[in-house]
Amino acid sequence: MASAPTSFDPGLTQQYTGPLLRAINKDGSFNVRRRGVRSLAGSFYQHLVGLSWPRFLGLVALAYLLINLIFAAIYAALGPGALRTVDGHMGLGDFAVAFFFSVHTLTTVGYGDVYPLGMPANILAAFEAGLGLMGFALATGLLFARFSRPNAQLIFSDRMVIAPYGTGLSLQFRIANRRHNVLTDVQADMMLMTVEQDSQGKLRRNFVELKLERKKVFFLALTWTVVHPMDESSPLWGKTAADLERLQAEVLILIRGYDDSFTQVVNTRYSYRWEEIEWLARFTPAFDVAPEGHIVLDLARIGATSSVREL
Amino acid sequence: MASAPTSFDPGLTQQYTGPLLRAINKDGSFNVRRRGVRSLAGSFYQHLVGLSWPRFLGLVALAYLLINLIFAAIYAALGPGALRTVDGHMGLGDFAVAFFFSVHTLTTVGYGDVYPLGMPANILAAFEAGLGLMGFALATGLLFARFSRPNAQLIFSDRMVIAPYGTGLSLQFRIANRRHNVLTDVQADMMLMTVEQDSQGKLRRNFVELKLERKKVFFLALTWTVVHPMDESSPLWGKTAADLERLQAEVLILIRGYDDSFTQVVNTRYSYRWEEIEWLARFTPAFDVAPEGHIVLDLARIGATSSVREL
Amino acid sequence: MASAPTSFDPGLTQQYTGPLLRAINKDGSFNVRRRGVRSLAGSFYQHLVGLSWPRFLGLVALAYLLINLIFAAIYAALGPGALRTVDGHMGLGDFAVAFFFSVHTLTTVGYGDVYPLGMPANILAAFEAGLGLMGFALATGLLFARFSRPNAQLIFSDRMVIAPYGTGLSLQFRIANRRHNVLTDVQADMMLMTVEQDSQGKLRRNFVELKLERKKVFFLALTWTVVHPMDESSPLWGKTAADLERLQAEVLILIRGYDDSFTQVVNTRYSYRWEEIEWLARFTPAFDVAPEGHIVLDLARIGATSSVREL
Amino acid sequence: MASAPTSFDPGLTQQYTGPLLRAINKDGSFNVRRRGVRSLAGSFYQHLVGLSWPRFLGLVALAYLLINLIFAAIYAALGPGALRTVDGHMGLGDFAVAFFFSVHTLTTVGYGDVYPLGMPANILAAFEAGLGLMGFALATGLLFARFSRPNAQLIFSDRMVIAPYGTGLSLQFRIANRRHNVLTDVQADMMLMTVEQDSQGKLRRNFVELKLERKKVFFLALTWTVVHPMDESSPLWGKTAADLERLQAEVLILIRGYDDSFTQVVNTRYSYRWEEIEWLARFTPAFDVAPEGHIVLDLARIGATSSVREL
Repeated sequence: MASAPTSFDPGLTQQYTGPLLRAINKDGSFNVRRRGVRSLAGSFYQHLVGLSWPRFLGLVALAYLLINLIFAAIYAALGPGALRTVDGHMGLGDFAVAFFFSVHTLTTVGYGDVYPLGMPANILAAFEAGLGLMGFALATGLLFARFSRPNAQLIFSDRMVIAPYGTGLSLQFRIANRRHNVLTDVQADMMLMTVEQDSQGKLRRNFVELKLERKKVFFLALTWTVVHPMDESSPLWGKTAADLERLQAEVLILIRGYDDSFTQVVNTRYSYRWEEIEWLARFTPAFDVAPEGHIVLDLARIGATSSVREL
Repeated sequence: MASAPTSFDPGLTQQYTGPLLRAINKDGSFNVRRRGVRSLAGSFYQHLVGLSWPRFLGLVALAYLLINLIFAAIYAALGPGALRTVDGHMGLGDFAVAFFFSVHTLTTVGYGDVYPLGMPANILAAFEAGLGLMGFALATGLLFARFSRPNAQLIFSDRMVIAPYGTGLSLQFRIANRRHNVLTDVQADMMLMTVEQDSQGKLRRNFVELKLERKKVFFLALTWTVVHPMDESSPLWGKTAADLERLQAEVLILIRGYDDSFTQVVNTRYSYRWEEIEWLARFTPAFDVAPEGHIVLDLARIGATSSVREL
Repeated sequence: MASAPTSFDPGLTQQYTGPLLRAINKDGSFNVRRRGVRSLAGSFYQHLVGLSWPRFLGLVALAYLLINLIFAAIYAALGPGALRTVDGHMGLGDFAVAFFFSVHTLTTVGYGDVYPLGMPANILAAFEAGLGLMGFALATGLLFARFSRPNAQLIFSDRMVIAPYGTGLSLQFRIANRRHNVLTDVQADMMLMTVEQDSQGKLRRNFVELKLERKKVFFLALTWTVVHPMDESSPLWGKTAADLERLQAEVLILIRGYDDSFTQVVNTRYSYRWEEIEWLARFTPAFDVAPEGHIVLDLARIGATSSVREL
Repeated sequence: MASAPTSFDPGLTQQYTGPLLRAINKDGSFNVRRRGVRSLAGSFYQHLVGLSWPRFLGLVALAYLLINLIFAAIYAALGPGALRTVDGHMGLGDFAVAFFFSVHTLTTVGYGDVYPLGMPANILAAFEAGLGLMGFALATGLLFARFSRPNAQLIFSDRMVIAPYGTGLSLQFRIANRRHNVLTDVQADMMLMTVEQDSQGKLRRNFVELKLERKKVFFLALTWTVVHPMDESSPLWGKTAADLERLQAEVLILIRGYDDSFTQVVNTRYSYRWEEIEWLARFTPAFDVAPEGHIVLDLARIGATSSVREL
């Protein structure tokens, strides 16, 4: 790789010892963990924003149940005189009365069929009503943040291909927008990460940018096949599948675009390792034309390839 | 088009078979449909954000009615002992009592003139009150997202004109800001999409960027006439109306600007097909000067043209 | 102005007839009105976001009063049997009872001391409670939008000065950040708008960009004096105060910066007309150094100048 | 510094008298105070957004308490007939009844065990319920703004080092992302601020940009060591620790990056003074490789250095 572009560190490390996992996971996260992270309110919030919907809703339900159980326990501990009901026991035990009174208070529904008597119960209810409002304010923000985050939008072909290109070869992957909204000014960066032994026998990661035939498209309405020509200036020039395996090659990808419906810049990371590269294949079109003239994009075919017999 | 700028794919496709609809619809969407889209919570939310106001409000009202009907049916199914009223039947039937109790609970208004008795009714009401708060949190986010989206802001002339320009011709369209806020750093891109048969007789779309006399204006306070000079370097050089029809010419337009009151970048797509081009015409001013010195922009005249007799 | 930079239209118009007001008002708005604007929900919302606080709060209070009066009138029209009170007339007349019941419903406070009887009153109350929630969702969004808008942040010197610069002159204005947060990557653009008669005796606006000594500062922590050197390449070269008046000169200014605490790009427009230019003066420092070593910026002195006796 | 890059003012001032504190504090704020700031609603809001969590929550609790005390005082002043309880004195004194009624109203919980009688109490309660909704809308916006602000994200090494670099020296600092989310397109700017006496013996601040070996990394997943080579073109060429002290050298730093989970541009300022520079040292790696192949970044070691014996 003597005459290849100089290596640089794109923000991961070059020096390391021992085997490493892939640099970028399939969800765009990095295989990096942090120690010494102070617990930050913002981090917790971000965690809640990033959860899957079933987990998020489960957590909300659990928190709702737990908070009411805790308050119910305190109301119940204040004794039977702390809560007065307008209708005997309402068909419920003492704890259940306390629990549902807590619900009425936390949600501010406040029917008034149960109400607090005496100082301690009233103070507690005043605190719970305030807490309920703040908790609900938090939930509003969380829901909004979850929905207004343009995540998981791009779909990548499951493999890269090495396809004929002019008289040589090229390295390609294909993306599409999973959603119906439009991405504009979509831009791609591709980097090759390899592992080599330095002169002292230590392993070093090398990072080289891979030049693209086209770095940017105006809009991503259908699919975009991003192409790196493996010409003489490429660090992949003359490399074989065996070479890439020996170098533990991983292709790091960064896609940026402007999301029209979120009016935000969207940023996606992805990577392919050497074993996810298909040699001598081409992507086949992932769309059909409907009789009425619409183009129908089939997301399931985004990674569809056909092999190429020879150059 | 031998010496014209090279063709490239701006994110639509080049290869296709059979007749195609226009690439970009008048609302800025593309004539592309997706198959295999997993239902994403975010997509549903985006759909609600993108609905027209009457449809959105209708949907909210319908959801409010339906949810209350469902809860009312369950409360009613629990039997007459599940809900106690302070005042006989309140002039209502059993189902109506259950329905309005559901309303009191979902909205957290909780008058207390009806209240739940026994475990099942209380649990259901606790669930409904929590659901009401989450639903309302969702509505808050949706309303905010709907209002804070800078959409439908630009108005385009209904046709392009081919107007005299220096000693030759130019292709022009005109835009204005429909709202009173100000767009700054407004930038335009224009592309020509044509359809041609390749050497094997297959149809191919060609995309060529059209150079603009001015790509950017500092602010869009009045109107902006975007001009592509049809000089020798233009793929439109020497073309006639018949040529454009044969080539199924469609001019794709991308406008970006910074919206001052939303403090966001705004991005609009538009297109004109060959039949929306008026040959040998000029745009006439779309504004008057009021006696007090104000400029009065008449949005209805944004597409007003006068024909030009000869070059 | 023969060898001066070519004129261009920055988004206002060149052609006009009759006297015109200044192009940009002191609040950054343009002297342009729109005719044929369809009433857009978004525009109304933007209007509410842009109102001053006293007007906004007044409008909210008025809407609250009006909506309750309307609902009260309908409840009252349903007759005395529509609303039942737990406590006689509660010391109020029929209409007042209806009014306060409406308040209890719209705000979802729902004490239950008044509650609806019969179908019509219950349906109306169900509608009002839903409306109250939507109205409150709207208010939440409006308050958030109002607060999270980084407006009115820059303060401009009230006049420009023409100050000595090297062996010649320069046109200068000064800005500061009115708030305690920090603006970074602040960038300025300056344009000269003049009015001249063309060969057919028609008035035309000319727009020329004025080159700046420094277009950008890393951060705006104190003041920034933006300087246009009036050298030979400047359209102001050799001009006198009388020239500028005759040309109805207006200097249009566009400032962009990144607001650290709103994490948004901020965009401010301003303009100075010929009568707001002070010839042969300099800005005097607008800050002092406190004994403890802090720099104290005095916003009242942002426009402070001292006159220069001679070149 | 004769052949060094020309000095410029990055937005602080050059002219000053007397001793000055450091330009940029460790929290990224500037040592600048403002006089003549009109109290702006937005500034107050920003202040609330910027408070620490304990202070913010304390303030919210205090406001909740105070508002209820004020309303309670007015209800109590209206006399015992203004509020009716369904249950004698509910085990409370008159003022306590008024206080808890205020809570029920402000939070819209409205049990109805206490309710207002007569015009004055009803009007006051209607006002308080409206106020409660607006206050809660404000709290929702504040919570959202607090959480969605990508602050305090970067961690800087506590000192800069002057480390061997090729055959010479370089000035370095190191940063890492404190959170688990990913920053992309991270860009750094470094400036040297020195104080020198001008020809008239007045002190002047000089600002010179320091060129970086690499201005930008694609993503900040681990650590980034930002390096200024102290070569012949550097204003630090040949300088000693004593020189930097005499010049009161302060290195101003501006880092920008795109935050993937907030989908926002993040902007951080930092500075090091001469006494925070360690001569002849290197940063030691701040990460280990876990047995499973993860990289484990230890934030506590971000500033870890080892001294270098000689060049």
